Amino acid sequence: MSCRLSSRKHKPQNSIVQIREVTFGADNLVVMAGPCTIGDEADLLKVALSVKMMGAHVLRGGAFKTRTAHHTFQGLGETALKMMAGVRDKTGMPVVTEITDARDLDLVGRYADILQIGSRNMQNTVLLKAVGKSRCPVLLKRGFSNTIDEWLEAADYILAGGNEQVILCERGIRTFEYSTRFTLDILAVPVIKSLSHLPIIVDPSHAAGKRELVGSLAKAAVAAGADGLLIEVDCNPNKAPVDGRQTITTGQFAKLMPQLRAVANAVGRGL
Amino acid sequence: MSCRLSSRKHKPQNSIVQIREVTFGADNLVVMAGPCTIGDEADLLKVALSVKMMGAHVLRGGAFKTRTAHHTFQGLGETALKMMAGVRDKTGMPVVTEITDARDLDLVGRYADILQIGSRNMQNTVLLKAVGKSRCPVLLKRGFSNTIDEWLEAADYILAGGNEQVILCERGIRTFEYSTRFTLDILAVPVIKSLSHLPIIVDPSHAAGKRELVGSLAKAAVAAGADGLLIEVDCNPNKAPVDGRQTITTGQFAKLMPQLRAVANAVGRGL
Amino acid sequence: MSCRLSSRKHKPQNSIVQIREVTFGADNLVVMAGPCTIGDEADLLKVALSVKMMGAHVLRGGAFKTRTAHHTFQGLGETALKMMAGVRDKTGMPVVTEITDARDLDLVGRYADILQIGSRNMQNTVLLKAVGKSRCPVLLKRGFSNTIDEWLEAADYILAGGNEQVILCERGIRTFEYSTRFTLDILAVPVIKSLSHLPIIVDPSHAAGKRELVGSLAKAAVAAGADGLLIEVDCNPNKAPVDGRQTITTGQFAKLMPQLRAVANAVGRGL
Amino acid sequence: MSCRLSSRKHKPQNSIVQIREVTFGADNLVVMAGPCTIGDEADLLKVALSVKMMGAHVLRGGAFKTRTAHHTFQGLGETALKMMAGVRDKTGMPVVTEITDARDLDLVGRYADILQIGSRNMQNTVLLKAVGKSRCPVLLKRGFSNTIDEWLEAADYILAGGNEQVILCERGIRTFEYSTRFTLDILAVPVIKSLSHLPIIVDPSHAAGKRELVGSLAKAAVAAGADGLLIEVDCNPNKAPVDGRQTITTGQFAKLMPQLRAVANAVGRGL
Repeated sequence: MSCRLSSRKHKPQNSIVQIREVTFGADNLVVMAGPCTIGDEADLLKVALSVKMMGAHVLRGGAFKTRTAHHTFQGLGETALKMMAGVRDKTGMPVVTEITDARDLDLVGRYADILQIGSRNMQNTVLLKAVGKSRCPVLLKRGFSNTIDEWLEAADYILAGGNEQVILCERGIRTFEYSTRFTLDILAVPVIKSLSHLPIIVDPSHAAGKRELVGSLAKAAVAAGADGLLIEVDCNPNKAPVDGRQTITTGQFAKLMPQLRAVANAVGRGL
Repeated sequence: MSCRLSSRKHKPQNSIVQIREVTFGADNLVVMAGPCTIGDEADLLKVALSVKMMGAHVLRGGAFKTRTAHHTFQGLGETALKMMAGVRDKTGMPVVTEITDARDLDLVGRYADILQIGSRNMQNTVLLKAVGKSRCPVLLKRGFSNTIDEWLEAADYILAGGNEQVILCERGIRTFEYSTRFTLDILAVPVIKSLSHLPIIVDPSHAAGKRELVGSLAKAAVAAGADGLLIEVDCNPNKAPVDGRQTITTGQFAKLMPQLRAVANAVGRGL
Repeated sequence: MSCRLSSRKHKPQNSIVQIREVTFGADNLVVMAGPCTIGDEADLLKVALSVKMMGAHVLRGGAFKTRTAHHTFQGLGETALKMMAGVRDKTGMPVVTEITDARDLDLVGRYADILQIGSRNMQNTVLLKAVGKSRCPVLLKRGFSNTIDEWLEAADYILAGGNEQVILCERGIRTFEYSTRFTLDILAVPVIKSLSHLPIIVDPSHAAGKRELVGSLAKAAVAAGADGLLIEVDCNPNKAPVDGRQTITTGQFAKLMPQLRAVANAVGRGL
Repeated sequence: MSCRLSSRKHKPQNSIVQIREVTFGADNLVVMAGPCTIGDEADLLKVALSVKMMGAHVLRGGAFKTRTAHHTFQGLGETALKMMAGVRDKTGMPVVTEITDARDLDLVGRYADILQIGSRNMQNTVLLKAVGKSRCPVLLKRGFSNTIDEWLEAADYILAGGNEQVILCERGIRTFEYSTRFTLDILAVPVIKSLSHLPIIVDPSHAAGKRELVGSLAKAAVAAGADGLLIEVDCNPNKAPVDGRQTITTGQFAKLMPQLRAVANAVGRGL
């Protein structure tokens, strides 16, 4: 443990990850919002303008996907990356997107402001080493069956490569409870804050698996001390090719943001 | 499902459980606080007066315990019940305590205002049927490895006996994550609110297993929409015979209560 | 650990549990077979005669059940116990049946040769203490979410009461895998053999949840070193009120027994 | 489900995977044995000659490792591959080794007879697609937190690429039980046999995590119907850089093989 780069023993003060005007790990929370998967640039722009107006800071969207079944939609790849970059230019919002293959590092790095490592790739050490050599900030999702200890070991693979801009993201773990898609491990927030100097955000959408549960979970994450949120938002989620059931509408997001701000203020944070 | 007594299909409006002036399931949250196990009446009175002054509504304390190992402290039994009743008379606080044996129903019922069914007894159907015949309100903790569905089935055992005063309590489930004692299933709060008319509270102490994590968890529970909290508080927790490591001090409780009130207000509730 | 009564440190040599001519924990394996729940004496006699002819040693059957839902069949109680005793007299087979309530100790003890503690009651310490004071052998099923360590602690509750006739039974644990009813923890067999002097048997029926998987699992248990098996067998399982889907027919049992005997011989045991 | 390539609905008869004279999925079982990680060619040759003499069919050994912590031994890479190939030439044993990076496909394919996908890479769809385009047989280990359903979906990624030579390997899943490293899901053997036409083998070493438990587990796997075993064997496991605690000695392997043969014969198979 003494040698772990992600530990507070190694670096007692909070790490701050700065992407343009967006700051992770400081007093104010960061909200990242957008569709699960990118299908159309006009739709993406519409969502981006909408969530930006409500106060979201970063646009999320998937170009490359890690799907359980081979015959399902795997993302539009570079076409989607170009759409994201186009929308970023029009809105000024930084963008976060998933990288699934070390060979795509240059390609994805050309378009994205934050590289996301998905849950199924948290122990893909080849990919971790690759992004460790990049200078692009990395959003490292917790593997859905990995311990907090293993998660910090995965962060160390990136930090050891010289990339210090790592943001952790709790997104739910697999348990016996099957009425929700995953079980959000809300305790991970204070545990990470105690063990590590890295910022931690929460993805309430994948854990809940159902749109109507996302708001409660997002508020709980803010109250528990998370540094930000990653929320799936779309104009018309029921038409989404992937994960539409857990995506909230821009209208629901508009109602949620003031509630999140109120909870953030109640725990001494801004949003 | 159509016949489930605990379901919103059976009864759409929220159930209210009233114990003297304390109301579960209404706009205001209920805080239940006190030591894990009762050892001494003077100490118990001191804790009770302290938590009452900070705004706690109900006093908790264990007389009969379900312990994993036979050679560990199993509680003081009736002696502890009498101490609880004595403190209740002096403070006016209703008391909640665990019942572990159907044969103790009359005895515990003479002293307690709320009967608690512990996690390990959630599927002890003999005990569930017994408290279902009582007219004393029941706090039904979720079994640490039981699904939400099984939990509502357990509530139905009580409701079917004619006792409609059931309060559910999420206290953490067993998962592969071992850095905390249990994994608090925060999603259970909105899921229960959607499926059932019964009030739901959260016990952050048993899930966390560590004092320093209790505050974040309690705030998350309030933000998620819980109707109350059950918190282990003691004057000198490091001397407690059971679970001292997860018990917060009266000083910590005093600091936590205004924070909980702020979060409750942020989500439109009072405390 | 040093004080644990169930440990090999406390008692290095294997414990032998003797019930009439049936010996648990010796070279020869014990097969316990019969219906999940008793409904009719003639049917029970038919199953008993059939499984006895194939080599089964003990008759199993449920009189009191711990069911998840209150409105499902809870067993025939004393009526079923009398049927079991009647069949025992006619066949000479000892009988094992579940006890769910400490108040039933005298009643069940009058009819049964072995008292079974079900999975949901493994940490019902009131019941464990009660059977610890009995002189009747106890079959202690593992709680479906209890560690091996907690299971041995539960055994110690019984041993500490003076009852040394404890047989452990692995019956599957709850995991994320939902294609089977439970996940049989086959490793529990050699782990228990290494840590404890108590006999251990395996119930393949509840873990599998499907009749067609029971045979493979039973053979695996014998190969892993189990001291016996507890198998649900019925003449017409599709008509059974409880668990019929996982109950094999007497015809299937007749085919399975020679295979089990062959595997037992391959690992140096008899059956 | 109807479109799943790995399903028996798609192909009712068992798939046979043939590697030189070794046949997976036929009447006779295949035993793959060798050290966790390759460090020295002379040592590897010694192990190979020893396990071959006892009846093992394939040599296993790690060149590229997926390790939880970045500062631990990650394998010797191509140097180890060359050692394996050298030992293969001297012994005639086909070799299986792990591939962790799609970019290594040509390199590893030049030396290995079977490509192993490790547990942590089971949902690394980039890697699955890469080996799907290879004509080298693939040993697909189950992700330690993946359902059987997801495992078969992963197999389909490979089959859809045109590579029909897929062997499944159960190696233990993550549960709450922490006295063993993982919980071997023995039920996966008959479940896979019922759902899929692909051969399934069992790795008892990683599940057990302790040398003294490997033998019981291996016998259980054979009795349950597995088509083969993957066992960690070394001359001096206590000196191994990785996983020595779960590696059996060549002496223990020599004693185990006749026992495995006896169990195989008892269930109508050869070895």
